[in-house]
Amino acid sequence: MKTNDDLFLHFLQDIYYAERQILKALPKMAKATDSDKLKQGFLQHRDQTQQHVERLQQVFEAIGKPARGATCEAIQGLIEEGEDVIHDFEQGAVRDSGLAACAQAVEHYEIARYGALIAWAKAGGHQNVVQWLDQTLAEEKQTDALLNQLANSELNPKAAQGKARIAA
Amino acid sequence: MKTNDDLFLHFLQDIYYAERQILKALPKMAKATDSDKLKQGFLQHRDQTQQHVERLQQVFEAIGKPARGATCEAIQGLIEEGEDVIHDFEQGAVRDSGLAACAQAVEHYEIARYGALIAWAKAGGHQNVVQWLDQTLAEEKQTDALLNQLANSELNPKAAQGKARIAA
Repeated sequence: MKTNDDLFLHFLQDIYYAERQILKALPKMAKATDSDKLKQGFLQHRDQTQQHVERLQQVFEAIGKPARGATCEAIQGLIEEGEDVIHDFEQGAVRDSGLAACAQAVEHYEIARYGALIAWAKAGGHQNVVQWLDQTLAEEKQTDALLNQLANSELNPKAAQGKARIAA
Repeated sequence: MKTNDDLFLHFLQDIYYAERQILKALPKMAKATDSDKLKQGFLQHRDQTQQHVERLQQVFEAIGKPARGATCEAIQGLIEEGEDVIHDFEQGAVRDSGLAACAQAVEHYEIARYGALIAWAKAGGHQNVVQWLDQTLAEEKQTDALLNQLANSELNPKAAQGKARIAA
């Protein structure tokens, strides 16, 4: 009979895989955007994501398990949607608006996952790992809020005006 | 040059596909759970999802486009994660806790998507469709909150106690 701890480990391996995929995807998204603020946001979040990976390694160590990822189909699909936007929309304001939305979907995925991991860690008595997961969760929420603010204040209005700048 | 409206349509087709996949997945998730409350929650959300599909058809009609889905890799991955939980965890409290978390990840995906669709509809001057999208977004948020409440109050504590009931 599998336990709560098995469930925790299953999704810990899942998010560990996901974070490392996000780490690879963010520079590509930064390269594909025409907005300096969005590019900067993607690159800053890349650096945060590196820390998220390291915090997960601390969690694995604390529960005495090797840091190992397990293929996460959800993140593969979420990243693919961003690649579709890059493929289907030429460089400019409309693409930028789409990329921000795809990044927000990734953030929401992580918010759901870290929320569940924290609940399982608490329920399973792994109070020692909660602070690391909490810290990452707070950063994912902050990133989502920043993307939302940037989309509403700048990217979406520019996309709606059709004022797409062509890449130099 | 593709426009904001193309972006809106792209993700409208994406969520239309996703909602119909969710419609098929929810009865399977309901069947796989041992918790009466979670089962009831999945089936109630199935009925809501039917309405979400119909509201999307209204949106397509209002913008003069045929209601058509476009393969959404993200929802395929998210649903697959739920299927993995059913496959990897036998019927009982631990599986239920995992299923609720997978359903919350689906809700978060939809919250991100409807949020972006509403922003694009407003930016593009499609004020007439915003009410339908808003209504669905509110229901997705409500479902996420209900799942969270059920997970924290009942499913996770039961899973942590290891009191998994074996299927009859």
